[in-house]
Order: sequence, then C-alpha cells, then structure tokens
Amino acid sequence: MEEDKKYHTHTSADGSEFTHCHEGEHPHTHKNTKVVINRLSRAIGHLESVKRMVSDGRDCSEVLVQLSAVISALNSTGKVIIKDHIENCIVDAVESGDRKAIDDLNNAIDRFMK
Amino acid sequence: MEEDKKYHTHTSADGSEFTHCHEGEHPHTHKNTKVVINRLSRAIGHLESVKRMVSDGRDCSEVLVQLSAVISALNSTGKVIIKDHIENCIVDAVESGDRKAIDDLNNAIDRFMK
Repeated sequence: MEEDKKYHTHTSADGSEFTHCHEGEHPHTHKNTKVVINRLSRAIGHLESVKRMVSDGRDCSEVLVQLSAVISALNSTGKVIIKDHIENCIVDAVESGDRKAIDDLNNAIDRFMK
Repeated sequence: MEEDKKYHTHTSADGSEFTHCHEGEHPHTHKNTKVVINRLSRAIGHLESVKRMVSDGRDCSEVLVQLSAVISALNSTGKVIIKDHIENCIVDAVESGDRKAIDDLNNAIDRFMK
C-alpha cells in the first residue's frame, strides 16, 4: 500500500487505470479514468475541427451545431466524473466523516450545473 | 470581387480576417473570426490541461471546476459567433430575403441554447 502518497494510479488486469483522487488515509479508486481521458481526447479533436471550420469560413450555423455537440460531450463527461467520484470517493468520505470532500463536490456541482 | 466562390477570406489592414459565411450573391464578412479562433485555441489548451489533471489523478472537484470553465468559455465563444453572424450575415440575408439563412441560424440556436 502507498497510503503516504497523495495520488497514485494502478493498472488493472484489463489495462484500465484506477486513480486515487484524495489525499489522506482512505485510498479509493476511479473506474472511469480511461473513459474520461478518451472522451476529453475526442472533444479536443472535435474542437480542432471546429477551429478549422471557422478558419475555412464555414457557415456559422454549421459551426454552432458542431460547437454545441462538443459542449454536450463535455457536459456528459462531467457527469461521468461526478458519478465516478460519488461511487468511488464520496462513499468512502461519508464513511470516514470527511465532510470537506462532500463540500468540495457540492461546490463543484454548483459551478458545473448552472 | 470573388462572388463565384462559396467562401473566401480577406485580411484587413490590421491583420484580422474577414471571412464570408454564406454562399450566394451577397458576400458578407465576419469581424470576429480571429477572436473566435483564439478563443477556441485557448479552450483546446485548457482542455489538454484538464486531461492532464485527470491522468495525474487530481481531485475530481478541481477537475470539475476546470471543466466547467472550459464549457463556459465555449458557450461565450458560441455567443460571439451568433452575434457576429447576426451582425454580418443575417442583416444581409434579411435584406435579400434569404429565409434559409435565418431558418438555419434559428435551428442552430435551438441546439446551442438548451
């Protein structure tokens, strides 16, 4: 065990990564780290193509449709992160009475869902 | 004039680009093309850093705060695109009775603002 390290990542048998998300005595894991990274990579690629559309002078309505697709994808990535966090970290935080982790998440959700 | 080309870009004296956004007989320009491209580039860089945060196993709440900052930036970039389009294309479209341009923009706004 590496409980003295703030963050560390395990690689499971199927190649997916489990990353600890909080410092402290209760290490916990994120099952969807790889999923989140893949979604962010796709969003970056999509945004690069939106940028190309703008420089090519493509129709604004088409640009808006693609930009809103990127925003939707990022919103749903945020949901994956929140659910993963609740599943893997908040449950531990509640059990160990770590109120700060819960407050931090609530603040982040306030900013995320406007 | 290059009215036979679907899209073309001018570079003005101050280096900013004016890009035509619609095919057809009424060429019009976008004043904020450069602004939009710069904002998209910054959003891509920001998203790269969010991706790094996730692979480094940074706290989920911090990741969510940064992700929501990127989403806000993309939303306001969309607003710049919409306003630019209205200012520079829709005015022309209305004058020339180009109903399709207006319908396309309305559909794009419907998708963009949920």
